[in-house]
Amino acid sequence: MNHVTVIGTGITKFGTMADKSLKQLLLEASFEALKEAGFPTVDAVFIGNFMSGPLANQEILGSLIAHDLGLGPIPTAKMEGACASGGIAFRHACEMIEAGVYNTVLVAGGEKMKQADTNVVTSAINAAMDTDSNEKMAGLSFPGFFGLVANRYFYETEASKKHLAMVALKNREYAVQNSIAQYRDPVALEEILAARMITEPLGLFDCSPITDGAAAVILSRGQSGIRVIASSQASGPTQAQEVEDLLTIGAIKKSAELAYEQAGLGPDDIDVIELHDCFSMTEILAYEALGLAARSEGWKLLENGDTKHGGKIPVNTSGGLLSRGHPIGATGIAQIYQVVQQLRGTACNQVDGARIGLAQNLGGTGSYSTVHIFSNGR
Amino acid sequence: MNHVTVIGTGITKFGTMADKSLKQLLLEASFEALKEAGFPTVDAVFIGNFMSGPLANQEILGSLIAHDLGLGPIPTAKMEGACASGGIAFRHACEMIEAGVYNTVLVAGGEKMKQADTNVVTSAINAAMDTDSNEKMAGLSFPGFFGLVANRYFYETEASKKHLAMVALKNREYAVQNSIAQYRDPVALEEILAARMITEPLGLFDCSPITDGAAAVILSRGQSGIRVIASSQASGPTQAQEVEDLLTIGAIKKSAELAYEQAGLGPDDIDVIELHDCFSMTEILAYEALGLAARSEGWKLLENGDTKHGGKIPVNTSGGLLSRGHPIGATGIAQIYQVVQQLRGTACNQVDGARIGLAQNLGGTGSYSTVHIFSNGR
Repeated sequence: MNHVTVIGTGITKFGTMADKSLKQLLLEASFEALKEAGFPTVDAVFIGNFMSGPLANQEILGSLIAHDLGLGPIPTAKMEGACASGGIAFRHACEMIEAGVYNTVLVAGGEKMKQADTNVVTSAINAAMDTDSNEKMAGLSFPGFFGLVANRYFYETEASKKHLAMVALKNREYAVQNSIAQYRDPVALEEILAARMITEPLGLFDCSPITDGAAAVILSRGQSGIRVIASSQASGPTQAQEVEDLLTIGAIKKSAELAYEQAGLGPDDIDVIELHDCFSMTEILAYEALGLAARSEGWKLLENGDTKHGGKIPVNTSGGLLSRGHPIGATGIAQIYQVVQQLRGTACNQVDGARIGLAQNLGGTGSYSTVHIFSNGR
Repeated sequence: MNHVTVIGTGITKFGTMADKSLKQLLLEASFEALKEAGFPTVDAVFIGNFMSGPLANQEILGSLIAHDLGLGPIPTAKMEGACASGGIAFRHACEMIEAGVYNTVLVAGGEKMKQADTNVVTSAINAAMDTDSNEKMAGLSFPGFFGLVANRYFYETEASKKHLAMVALKNREYAVQNSIAQYRDPVALEEILAARMITEPLGLFDCSPITDGAAAVILSRGQSGIRVIASSQASGPTQAQEVEDLLTIGAIKKSAELAYEQAGLGPDDIDVIELHDCFSMTEILAYEALGLAARSEGWKLLENGDTKHGGKIPVNTSGGLLSRGHPIGATGIAQIYQVVQQLRGTACNQVDGARIGLAQNLGGTGSYSTVHIFSNGR
């Protein structure tokens, strides 16, 4: 991928945005991104969103945003791939620009989840499982799935709840410094370990929250900006019972391999990463699938402090899904927002001299993963 | 567009499919298309769907279909653009193949609407309007919008309910011959005119029904098959109050102009058309927007029999949305299915010697339109 650059970024506050509709959130982030890019002529709009149909009786987000921003009768679409909807929308824009179909594309992701009852939201999230499967019908949920995986991880390794808590602590410490993050109050390791249980062994701080928010980027062909040097996507089994190895998220692994190959780089070349920590357990599995550690050894990175400032590769300097928040359709774009700020040198929790950044976005229990690698050309 | 061909097609029965889930319908159509194409290696799967979230608590259709068909860890996504979701998914596949990103793509569209209460379905359909707008909050619905347009049409022209009925009659006569159509019983013009009112002046036969069904196509790069010679998309206002001219659906007009330019053809070169007759009124407006007639003169084509066999360009030989049925996400692909059969010479209601065909798919009240033009190379 040689021609695609990010020339504008925008993001809203993440949290409870009671007085703003999803459309308003998307417009706010999109306007900020357009302004930063100098209000270019936009050729297409792609939206990442997962649950605005059931929660807000609102689809057609693509044409709503294009029309309300006065962008003209341009092509638009919403892309859905569960929690990877944002990454997928971004990837489609990259491919279309690289191919020369469009010169400039607005990609926005957003979700408004806080207006509905938690049970309604939880049920809507379960649309990212196979409704025809016995495991969904038997009551398996996302915390249930990743709890199950964590138990298996503890069985096969020397990792424990303490390592999960170390992920949650690291990401909260980063979120404290991120002005748009949902949870910015400092917490202590003991508080995380003592928090109420959601699904054994995942406590409250091990699970990403329900969040409102939106993020947007403007992608361009050939203009100066942060370069997209790899864009990949892979899929995987949609049911736990079909996963070959519970400790390997195949879609992440495959999408990472494709992206590294495309960029001609390996994990050692990356300076900063945003990855999909929907649960603290998922961050550790993503370390392994992204090649930062061997299978079943990701937990050791936490013991060494490898994935925070001063370590090898700071991960989730935004605060991650766990503390910045997880407005589902926005997440993939919010990750890219943070990586772009890092490569511009304007991020919260700036990594000094960061040159190459990676964003990884997961959908379902492993149904989708996108990986994007960025360079500031230095 | 020079490289894209359709090498496989599949479609399910349209109607009430009580014993099949949406996934099963999509798998059935996809399998038929793959079989027809000789089970090629598939590089990506795009799904057109609008309301499986609210109606079936089922998203992640892309990875479900890819995984259940054993296609490997390939990229997949669902595309949403209201009733144009199928056309949009198809267009993305065309662009990706033309650009050389993929060689072979499965595009499937589907919707399962009959399992829910009509009020629930009607409400879910209204997600294709702007939830923040006063007109949606005031109760404007899709039959309401197109009824309003029909009243204006009658005011500005000499057209009457009889012309709407002639659309419904023509399409029903075609559906009688289509083995997968939802409504195959012959009706008389008088019966259509006397049917119960839905929204003045639109009676029961003027409105497309609620339908279950799926359709699929395999697109390929460079293989022999029906060629895609133009693929375009445009958007338009999302609210009635913002439409400049109620009798012109700008998105259709714009997408048609782009497609004709791309193909180097005009409306006179087309032998057969499938267009988006979500209401009988919409078919007449689409005649005009596609350039088959001037503004406010589309109704005259019906008086002359121009849009049926023996006339200039037979339209909706499948029975159209009105009688073949309108499973929302499937519609754009089902239209393409019929055009491809026409160009192969294997269609129901075959148009003798058809060489060039066009498919036009509308989303919202005019928020999205796609136009695809096909050639059999003869």
